Amino acid sequence: MANRVCELFQIKYPIIQAGMVWCSDWKLASAVSNAGGLGIIGSGSMYPNIFEENLQQMQQATDKPYAVNIPLLYASLEEHLSLVEKYKVPIVFTSAGNPKTCTPRLKAAGCKVVHVVSSAKFAQKAEAAGVDAIVAEGFEAGGHNGREETTTMCLIPAVRRATQLPLIAAGGIGTGAGMAAAFALGAEGVQIGSRFVASNESSAHDNFKDKVVDAKEGDTILTLKQVVSVRLIKNKFYEEIQEAEKRGASAQELALLLGRGRAKKGMLEGDMNDGELEIGQVSAIIDKVMPAADILMEIWNEFNEVRTNLSELSF
Amino acid sequence: MANRVCELFQIKYPIIQAGMVWCSDWKLASAVSNAGGLGIIGSGSMYPNIFEENLQQMQQATDKPYAVNIPLLYASLEEHLSLVEKYKVPIVFTSAGNPKTCTPRLKAAGCKVVHVVSSAKFAQKAEAAGVDAIVAEGFEAGGHNGREETTTMCLIPAVRRATQLPLIAAGGIGTGAGMAAAFALGAEGVQIGSRFVASNESSAHDNFKDKVVDAKEGDTILTLKQVVSVRLIKNKFYEEIQEAEKRGASAQELALLLGRGRAKKGMLEGDMNDGELEIGQVSAIIDKVMPAADILMEIWNEFNEVRTNLSELSF
Repeated sequence: MANRVCELFQIKYPIIQAGMVWCSDWKLASAVSNAGGLGIIGSGSMYPNIFEENLQQMQQATDKPYAVNIPLLYASLEEHLSLVEKYKVPIVFTSAGNPKTCTPRLKAAGCKVVHVVSSAKFAQKAEAAGVDAIVAEGFEAGGHNGREETTTMCLIPAVRRATQLPLIAAGGIGTGAGMAAAFALGAEGVQIGSRFVASNESSAHDNFKDKVVDAKEGDTILTLKQVVSVRLIKNKFYEEIQEAEKRGASAQELALLLGRGRAKKGMLEGDMNDGELEIGQVSAIIDKVMPAADILMEIWNEFNEVRTNLSELSF
Repeated sequence: MANRVCELFQIKYPIIQAGMVWCSDWKLASAVSNAGGLGIIGSGSMYPNIFEENLQQMQQATDKPYAVNIPLLYASLEEHLSLVEKYKVPIVFTSAGNPKTCTPRLKAAGCKVVHVVSSAKFAQKAEAAGVDAIVAEGFEAGGHNGREETTTMCLIPAVRRATQLPLIAAGGIGTGAGMAAAFALGAEGVQIGSRFVASNESSAHDNFKDKVVDAKEGDTILTLKQVVSVRLIKNKFYEEIQEAEKRGASAQELALLLGRGRAKKGMLEGDMNDGELEIGQVSAIIDKVMPAADILMEIWNEFNEVRTNLSELSF
């Protein structure tokens, strides 16, 4: 195996498709795993019965390694952990919570455990909790995001200094050039979300895929910082957030405005006005919807081209 | 000459020291130019008589190419432009304003003109105005900053697609690894500010240099978005901004709070409580004050090591 990330996950390419609410069920994850990357089922938008169905389908669809993402603050955490154990899921990415909570249990169940962080400080906490690898995710990433607003460019070198664990970069990466940049900064793998939203196999609604392809620079923003920082596309729903914040709405009011079904309404059901549309800044350079395997190979080939070009600069 | 940026400026290394208020007078700029990079005198904090003194000293201190930075909204713009003409400054970096304003006049005076942008859209406007090169500066950069909050990771590829001009990346770059990342993303040069604030030759107060070296992740923030977005270190002055914003202060009140002398008070006079301390996120990985020439060579050597390491990955 080519490097520590490939070795840890037993995969061919150190390219990981992010687990994303409403966008990454078994169809996308198995497509990525079958193509030689690591596919992740995003369990954060699944009730336990749906999650179980996904695990069953996944095991039918691929014999390659795959992972699930589990947000540690999720209401059905206990049921999800039991399903991970029952189906012997080989790799678990945890996020949004304290890695101490579940790492020992998951390790005992034979899982490789990876924790997603947004700072070097939390990377060290994750290492102390016994995880096998770190995802460091910068400010430009879609969806939930850290308080410090540290960008991928500044975060990766800082985390690289803070831990010796295998390091996967996330946030702003959607191309082979981005992947090469992440490796230059010290990463050994990349986690890519937005680009895979715009894949044939993603469970995102076609309206949302079109929206991602159409997104231009400045079309996303990190908002709802009082409730839970999230990067999304500016739309009618975002305008309502802005108005509420301008009139000094409390965190409780904002949470109520966000409600429970906003993300589903937008990303799965295709309501581009009233839905919450989580996506990264890199959407500005995503131009078309493609099969996941083609995305993976395009990124991989460009990564190698860029590495060659860099080495051939005639300084 | 090794690449288009080196050729355009007639320099050995495509490393540019950013023109910064209160930190980059002729001493720093000449040190960088003499070491083979491009030093920039930051004229934005200089009255015309001080600027003229700096130009005279610069011409004594180096026979290498150098540049000045001119914020286009600066009150003494006309006097500064006349001085550029009088002293035949070879290269001018313009920022904070419309590049149409001065580019023809500067080109007529024989200057190479570079404009600093924070979006692909403005890069195209700068190209249309006739500039020779573009600096694209991401959200993580210190000091004044764009509205779109696009990070360097996302900005450089977008600007690379939008223009064929020589492209210099800025924001979050303070090491050779960062420089290699910028090149992977499509840049042909880097502009580095924060790292050179922490140089022996910078005119920053020692208190400010120490503060930059001590800064940890999350210690800077992009604030004053209602008045003029600026990234600075969180200190007592920033707490006052926060309080004012919480009570719904108007843009006018905030401008008054910022006042005229805040940046000078902090960065030049060393008041770490009441001064405005402009610095980038990359300060978190800046560990010591070094001679500017040593900083330049350390970055250059690491850049080449990282390029070699990337090419030798055994995929």
